[in-house]
Amino acid sequence: MYKKLLDHYDSSLTKNGVDGERLASRLDALSKIGLTEDNGSRRISFSPEEQQAKDLVKGWMEEAGLTVTQDGAANVIGRLGGSSSSKTIMAGSHLDSVPNGGHFDGPLGVLAALEVAQAWKDSGFHPEKSYEVIIFTDEEGSRFNSGLTGSQAMTGQWSEEQKSSLTDAVGRTFTSVLKDNNLSFQTFHEAERDFSDIEAFVEVHIEQGKRLEKENLPTGIVEGIAGPSWLNISFHGNAGHAGNTPMDDREDALIAAGQFISAVENLPPLISPSSVATVGKLDVKPNGVNVIPGEVYLTVDVRDIHEETRDKLRDSVLLLAEKIAEKRRIQVDTKEVMYVQPVQVTQNMQQKAGRAAEEVLGKKPFFLPSGAGHDAMMIGRKTDVAMLFTRSKDGISHSPEEWSSLDDCVQTVHVLKKLIESLSYVK
Amino acid sequence: MYKKLLDHYDSSLTKNGVDGERLASRLDALSKIGLTEDNGSRRISFSPEEQQAKDLVKGWMEEAGLTVTQDGAANVIGRLGGSSSSKTIMAGSHLDSVPNGGHFDGPLGVLAALEVAQAWKDSGFHPEKSYEVIIFTDEEGSRFNSGLTGSQAMTGQWSEEQKSSLTDAVGRTFTSVLKDNNLSFQTFHEAERDFSDIEAFVEVHIEQGKRLEKENLPTGIVEGIAGPSWLNISFHGNAGHAGNTPMDDREDALIAAGQFISAVENLPPLISPSSVATVGKLDVKPNGVNVIPGEVYLTVDVRDIHEETRDKLRDSVLLLAEKIAEKRRIQVDTKEVMYVQPVQVTQNMQQKAGRAAEEVLGKKPFFLPSGAGHDAMMIGRKTDVAMLFTRSKDGISHSPEEWSSLDDCVQTVHVLKKLIESLSYVK
Repeated sequence: MYKKLLDHYDSSLTKNGVDGERLASRLDALSKIGLTEDNGSRRISFSPEEQQAKDLVKGWMEEAGLTVTQDGAANVIGRLGGSSSSKTIMAGSHLDSVPNGGHFDGPLGVLAALEVAQAWKDSGFHPEKSYEVIIFTDEEGSRFNSGLTGSQAMTGQWSEEQKSSLTDAVGRTFTSVLKDNNLSFQTFHEAERDFSDIEAFVEVHIEQGKRLEKENLPTGIVEGIAGPSWLNISFHGNAGHAGNTPMDDREDALIAAGQFISAVENLPPLISPSSVATVGKLDVKPNGVNVIPGEVYLTVDVRDIHEETRDKLRDSVLLLAEKIAEKRRIQVDTKEVMYVQPVQVTQNMQQKAGRAAEEVLGKKPFFLPSGAGHDAMMIGRKTDVAMLFTRSKDGISHSPEEWSSLDDCVQTVHVLKKLIESLSYVK
Repeated sequence: MYKKLLDHYDSSLTKNGVDGERLASRLDALSKIGLTEDNGSRRISFSPEEQQAKDLVKGWMEEAGLTVTQDGAANVIGRLGGSSSSKTIMAGSHLDSVPNGGHFDGPLGVLAALEVAQAWKDSGFHPEKSYEVIIFTDEEGSRFNSGLTGSQAMTGQWSEEQKSSLTDAVGRTFTSVLKDNNLSFQTFHEAERDFSDIEAFVEVHIEQGKRLEKENLPTGIVEGIAGPSWLNISFHGNAGHAGNTPMDDREDALIAAGQFISAVENLPPLISPSSVATVGKLDVKPNGVNVIPGEVYLTVDVRDIHEETRDKLRDSVLLLAEKIAEKRRIQVDTKEVMYVQPVQVTQNMQQKAGRAAEEVLGKKPFFLPSGAGHDAMMIGRKTDVAMLFTRSKDGISHSPEEWSSLDDCVQTVHVLKKLIESLSYVK
């Protein structure tokens, strides 16, 4: 990965303490932790790989002069005390991944935030306000179907009841996995912070879409973050022998699921052009070649940047599942397991980020929505947030094919650095 | 189990030497070998439990006046020499089970065949042709994912190459398991029989479906045994972020699979009333809540008792997959991984079985297809076969819930006895 990143790198972008080769070597080092056979990334939340990645970055944080702590939700905080203010500016992202994800979603945001601190150290700059680089735990939620865990804990936006109900694919409960990691609900509560002195949080992330690619821009400014609603839907029919049960005497849960999936696709365009609905996860039971599926468990991820249309789409999806189950005379269970309000980026933050982008790129800044949820969404309910997106090749993410050029990554770091510096001055 | 079987037994069915209480006590005795904690049956092929069950039945065979041998594939043969013919009529089934199966699938067929011999002995009848009660080894194939082993060996329909490739769940090879049982490919070859003198094989089995229950009949006559074609079908789209990819810019493999599954259901009725097609197994990759499915791997089990319509259905299923993939602009791969020829029950055998059923039940006989494979399928390629099905409660099989009433079992034995007797007379 290191060689591929450097291949077409414009080394004149290494300046002002920001070092493209260092960024590339760090992205490369992280990519080796949990590397899959497809050259993808597998750093499931609360896994040894997630912690190993955090530990590697902790060392680099110390090199950059940050004081490193890990809180009660295993969020890593690398802090640089401000020279003349009690206020704090935070930046960061996450290091966990989906089961066979890419090497930029998460790591780029963490390393970009770290690069700012390292650049300051290398150039002898010290900010007036304190600066914190954060690695949030379990952003993706691929283990327990319920992400943003670290930023929820830090902002106190979670409940013991909801977390207690979670189990992973092998039947382990959330609480038992916490225990294995020397964590508990008690330590989670201790991780909650007072945000009165935290002035802003900035997250760099790959776009995971094709808008910047179409605009031919390395970086864009996020104007709002769509909040997802996650629905667990299960169809319950009757398992039976695939050979001896006539077609008209079946209660096949997978056919109901198939009809549901085919129809879900048609709902978003009826409700809002920015809304999406995705069946990403589906498990069949008993899942035998010659057994009629008795049960299907699937999830629907429903999103929009406007809460009203998002909720309307969610309700339509639930109604569809019920109608299909009724028509096929099988049972259906539905449950909303995640409900996140969309977050707006304030005009003030958009302007500051826009100015930083214009200075670095010499072009009018480009604003775009974020369809994906991010830790900035949780933090955005407690303090001002901004997000910078980096162009993604073909818009691919959550895949080993995920790619952003080193030029684009470094340009984004320059924009981030300008933005953090503008936020760090005492007015 | 004995008590439950006897609870509603109509004891007037104990007649002509056929004894319902004896049948119940023998089903009960077999159920105790490999009894699971769910009250199911666990007699895995080539296990001590399978042999223990065979040994128990061997003793009963001797009581019934049969000469007992065990062949080179561990098939048990209990033989009664004919009074005036060199021809042989065989009947039987198997005693192995799936990992947590029921107490009728297999044992009923063996004990029904044995009951005929015992009834003859008790009533002093001696058939003109020889009669053999067979216990086939490893019908279910739950150990090596490859059943009908005993009947393959007896008919010479197996290859050393295929069997050499088999390993069980703990990594033991088929050949090493044979060795533990004092068997080998050599003894398997020795188990092959000359079928020129074997005129017919009759197998009693539970229906594993609901047709007889719907017709309110204890027994039905099988008109043919469906051979399955197993298709592996995979759709290959593009994984992507569920939030940042607009609905009209996706290559979602699961939506293609959903459309395929919904449409497969409609194909069998267009081709043949006895054909079925089932998507029983489906796996999504990467299977993350917020990831557009990049790949879906599924299987289709296609069956019919007529080879021509079965193949036509298989071809329609494959064409459907290709059309959907083409329309959605994604890739599809298809492969037939199993192909078994269906076996017809001859008109002559169907008529003889039908007459026996009519005499016993006083009703017009009911004919139905067998969707499941049985040892009779292997034997049916060497000599005439017939199968009698016994009503299954709710059509459930391969489960501890499997149940057939003692009345229905005994009625089936009466039909079997009449049929064997009609076959045993020299014309």
